[in-house]
Amino acid sequence: MRVVALCGGVGGAKLADGLQQILGADLTLIINTGDDFEHRGLPVWPDVDTVLYTLAGIANSTQGWGRAAESWEVQREWQRLGIDTWFQLGDKDIALHLLRREWQSHGWSAARVCSELAALYGVSARLLPMSNAPAPTRILTSAGELPFQEYFVKLRCAPAVSGFAYGASAQRGASCEVLATLEEEGLDGVILCPSNPYLSIAPILAVPGLRKRLAELNAPVIGVSPIIARDALKGPTAKIMRELGIDVSPLTVAQEYRDFLDALLIDTADVADLPATAHGSTLVGDEIVMRNTHDRRRLAARCLKLLAELRTQPLV
Amino acid sequence: MRVVALCGGVGGAKLADGLQQILGADLTLIINTGDDFEHRGLPVWPDVDTVLYTLAGIANSTQGWGRAAESWEVQREWQRLGIDTWFQLGDKDIALHLLRREWQSHGWSAARVCSELAALYGVSARLLPMSNAPAPTRILTSAGELPFQEYFVKLRCAPAVSGFAYGASAQRGASCEVLATLEEEGLDGVILCPSNPYLSIAPILAVPGLRKRLAELNAPVIGVSPIIARDALKGPTAKIMRELGIDVSPLTVAQEYRDFLDALLIDTADVADLPATAHGSTLVGDEIVMRNTHDRRRLAARCLKLLAELRTQPLV
Repeated sequence: MRVVALCGGVGGAKLADGLQQILGADLTLIINTGDDFEHRGLPVWPDVDTVLYTLAGIANSTQGWGRAAESWEVQREWQRLGIDTWFQLGDKDIALHLLRREWQSHGWSAARVCSELAALYGVSARLLPMSNAPAPTRILTSAGELPFQEYFVKLRCAPAVSGFAYGASAQRGASCEVLATLEEEGLDGVILCPSNPYLSIAPILAVPGLRKRLAELNAPVIGVSPIIARDALKGPTAKIMRELGIDVSPLTVAQEYRDFLDALLIDTADVADLPATAHGSTLVGDEIVMRNTHDRRRLAARCLKLLAELRTQPLV
Repeated sequence: MRVVALCGGVGGAKLADGLQQILGADLTLIINTGDDFEHRGLPVWPDVDTVLYTLAGIANSTQGWGRAAESWEVQREWQRLGIDTWFQLGDKDIALHLLRREWQSHGWSAARVCSELAALYGVSARLLPMSNAPAPTRILTSAGELPFQEYFVKLRCAPAVSGFAYGASAQRGASCEVLATLEEEGLDGVILCPSNPYLSIAPILAVPGLRKRLAELNAPVIGVSPIIARDALKGPTAKIMRELGIDVSPLTVAQEYRDFLDALLIDTADVADLPATAHGSTLVGDEIVMRNTHDRRRLAARCLKLLAELRTQPLV
């Protein structure tokens, strides 16, 4: 099977890892780059790096970002010198950021940089940034309009969110690779990973032409709910939904993706409380929490099975 | 006393350290930047950094470059990834290089970057790069014309040297700070540190207007011989002199600086073999080997005494 998955950082990367275990090079990941920013002159791409590290088996799974067995010598030196280090940069992270900047200085596109990183770290899936041009997400909050990392890391998601401004405007144009991969022959389906719908998936969907392409796709599109039992497993998804006055429910997720989603995998715990279909999507119950590597593979297999079922007998 | 000293890396930095112990902020160092280059996208300034680390008391005195108690986590990661690391970059070094690049991206001049680094690392002497513009030294060798670091580090000074091309051409212009500091009122003298005359001092002397300014200076100019007993204490100075067909002798050093040098401190061991004056300079014998911090201070004091003597009773 050939599958495209859209994902952000931690939660999305786990499912991406499961999918790679099964599909290898037949998996293409379109990764959110709305969180990317420059710190200390280094190009930091949080979601790309989390996916890269997770799929390479070298992610720090306890902390949820960065490398396992990381060291902090460079940052310690900055601290000794009294230099502000609000954004944590590990030594292995810095090694990657420096390589990336060197490649960018050769004129390489973000897509090429991702592809070279995947090769260097031994990742078999194809990693695609959602856009070759910078497309920073800005958060509209009670503390004003904030750059993503300022909201997310510096202020620890404390300000109440009232909206978003996504960077991938029509002016910037999409990464040609992203639309092309959704137009390739033999695509068996698209999976929206259980990433934050507003901070991780929506920035990708804002890429011009992408949403329309998903709606017109001649293959099923499914998602995995990031909401279980009226809360998010991790991160500020539920908090943001409450601040926006939105119901914290898989139904809201289905609504967000209503123009292209064929089915949404929800947790078994939510099946009794929810209808069988919502906003044009079938809601399919299963165990969707990923606690370990085995869970990732199991959920990935479940997604692929659902895609296969949808191809033979469209549910909606 | 207010003194300006010209210096390169290790040997020069030792005397600079001794001078700073006595003079503090009344010492200005004009530092060779001909060795500067970019590696992995980082601005590496070997002589400036050696002087900075030495005067801050954090240099690795065993290895002769870089930081004491250095760690190598970033480089280890590159090695793990199979990335070429012919030029060693320690973590603390990288912390400095990244800060420097960040400051350069603000549009700061090399002179301002040096001054900020001195303040950050607690160095009281004034550190001046010889030029604000890049002025790379190129080495003419049996293996062709080579960039400095390729000759010095990659090829370990193996190719026979036939000449030099210094970067500080008239087109590039001098750092205005360098000439200005030699025109300041109350300057008590200039000291040429025992650095390599061809690789460290000559690139500085190639700065347009500098050599003429030294010749016209209304204050004594002295040097400390990098040659003792027909050899160099460290580095390729003697090897280069032999390859150029030049006599490995303090007399050659005096000849190189003949248009402005008033006196040259030579080692006691060489006094018996050499005349009292050469090429217009007085040759003054003393202990000039610096084995420890005390030696640095003692030699610095000897230099300052000689400058004072020359001011009251010009020897030449």
